[in-house]
Amino acid sequence: MNRRQFTRLAIAGASLAPFISVAQAEASFEQRKTQADAVSIKAHKDFMAVEGIKMMGNEKIAMLLYPGFYAADLVNPQFIFNSMMGAKIYLVSPTEDLTPVEAGGISIVPTHRQSECPDDLDILFIPGGAMGTLKAMQNQQFIAFIKAKAAKAKYITSVCTGSLLLAKAGLLKGKKATSHWTTLDILAKFGTTAVKERVVWDGNIVTGGGVTAGIDFALEILAALRGQQYAEVIQLQAEYDPAPPFNAGSPDKASPFVRDTVANMFAPLLVSMEHELET
Amino acid sequence: MNRRQFTRLAIAGASLAPFISVAQAEASFEQRKTQADAVSIKAHKDFMAVEGIKMMGNEKIAMLLYPGFYAADLVNPQFIFNSMMGAKIYLVSPTEDLTPVEAGGISIVPTHRQSECPDDLDILFIPGGAMGTLKAMQNQQFIAFIKAKAAKAKYITSVCTGSLLLAKAGLLKGKKATSHWTTLDILAKFGTTAVKERVVWDGNIVTGGGVTAGIDFALEILAALRGQQYAEVIQLQAEYDPAPPFNAGSPDKASPFVRDTVANMFAPLLVSMEHELET
Repeated sequence: MNRRQFTRLAIAGASLAPFISVAQAEASFEQRKTQADAVSIKAHKDFMAVEGIKMMGNEKIAMLLYPGFYAADLVNPQFIFNSMMGAKIYLVSPTEDLTPVEAGGISIVPTHRQSECPDDLDILFIPGGAMGTLKAMQNQQFIAFIKAKAAKAKYITSVCTGSLLLAKAGLLKGKKATSHWTTLDILAKFGTTAVKERVVWDGNIVTGGGVTAGIDFALEILAALRGQQYAEVIQLQAEYDPAPPFNAGSPDKASPFVRDTVANMFAPLLVSMEHELET
Repeated sequence: MNRRQFTRLAIAGASLAPFISVAQAEASFEQRKTQADAVSIKAHKDFMAVEGIKMMGNEKIAMLLYPGFYAADLVNPQFIFNSMMGAKIYLVSPTEDLTPVEAGGISIVPTHRQSECPDDLDILFIPGGAMGTLKAMQNQQFIAFIKAKAAKAKYITSVCTGSLLLAKAGLLKGKKATSHWTTLDILAKFGTTAVKERVVWDGNIVTGGGVTAGIDFALEILAALRGQQYAEVIQLQAEYDPAPPFNAGSPDKASPFVRDTVANMFAPLLVSMEHELET
């Protein structure tokens, strides 16, 4: 194969494995790199040209941090939202400074102060947590901030117990929503149709289940905003082809011992969260 | 039901839903909270008593940060490792200060300097990334640090392209390992048996696939260190009962268009990563 044939093959966007092996056999690193750049540019152009895919956008996405939230609730959706070319993500501080926020053994730096968070959000996102979420429910300023930013948001969203913060802000009355499985009973007592599903849509309210449900949640939102094929590309990039080593991810699948252990260990927190919605 | 019967029921560790509803019908918040505390303490004691579960430990876990790593590669395992009571997690800075490290649109604060990272690690963990991982492969000091800390580590581990950093440090020669699917061919060219599996064990080397494989990876390690039921409790807490909205999480499941888009978009990076292992 001569150089011209090789170029044609590479530019044609053949799948990567044959491209690499052909390139390695015949070309220097610099040649391979030049070809790979061309292949990449073509892939971007081809992707942009597909009907139904919205490659560029200017969505404003606010993800609210507060002490003690679960980093995992936030970071999986953040990885997926961060793939939205042109979109802007605001990691909003719970205060007026940019002090790192503790998030379950890991500290994350906010990018914006509350006063810098736009009103015309495409996505308002609230992560969940345990004791930190209870304390956030008790923080009137924080709850008022959620309510204010929800007023004009295109989508009002949460993962895990983040939905209890939406409930506390009065945003889930009469709505269908989900939460971490241990808190569904609580949600149901305060005027919400609590549903045990991975992702629940009700109008502009989109809620995800516990922690890892944030992946399914964010892929659904990405598909709604940028098209299903965009979401599939990011799913493949994230290699989201789950293979849980055990079958214990849901209370109806786990053994009664495992299920009761989780529910009972969290009982004090759950009683306190319920009390917080009563008051 | 009188108070004594109620107490007996609560202490018996009945599942949460009946507990909450009984409690709410008859007791004040303070009474409910006291009962819930007792239920929680009993659940912890019962859990600790189960054969095969190691509730407390003193594992030392180092998770290495470097500019441009994928936060999602790190945070899912961190959530799971953080459940290991008594274990200590070192989020190790790539430098001798504790400046926040950029991780794909999110900044994470290291907890320890390189000089503070122990040698006798139970887990050495390397997250993956894209351009940031290439730059880390080119950072001789960082590669030497990985090699040094691997020398006495009980488990040498990675998620996603983190395995290319292990390869660069010479730790995967003659070993079976996995990586992000786009980089398996590269790994295979440099003396590693590259396997397309979610989690791969070879002696004390445990590697996970792309990004979200970190969940499966960490649950397997948790089970090895603390027992399967411990891992199941954390799986249920993380509600890891995945329901991907699309079937595109693996190159053999995604459409050829989606697969080629990802492979071709990343072609320049892949050529550069391959070159880095050659040199």
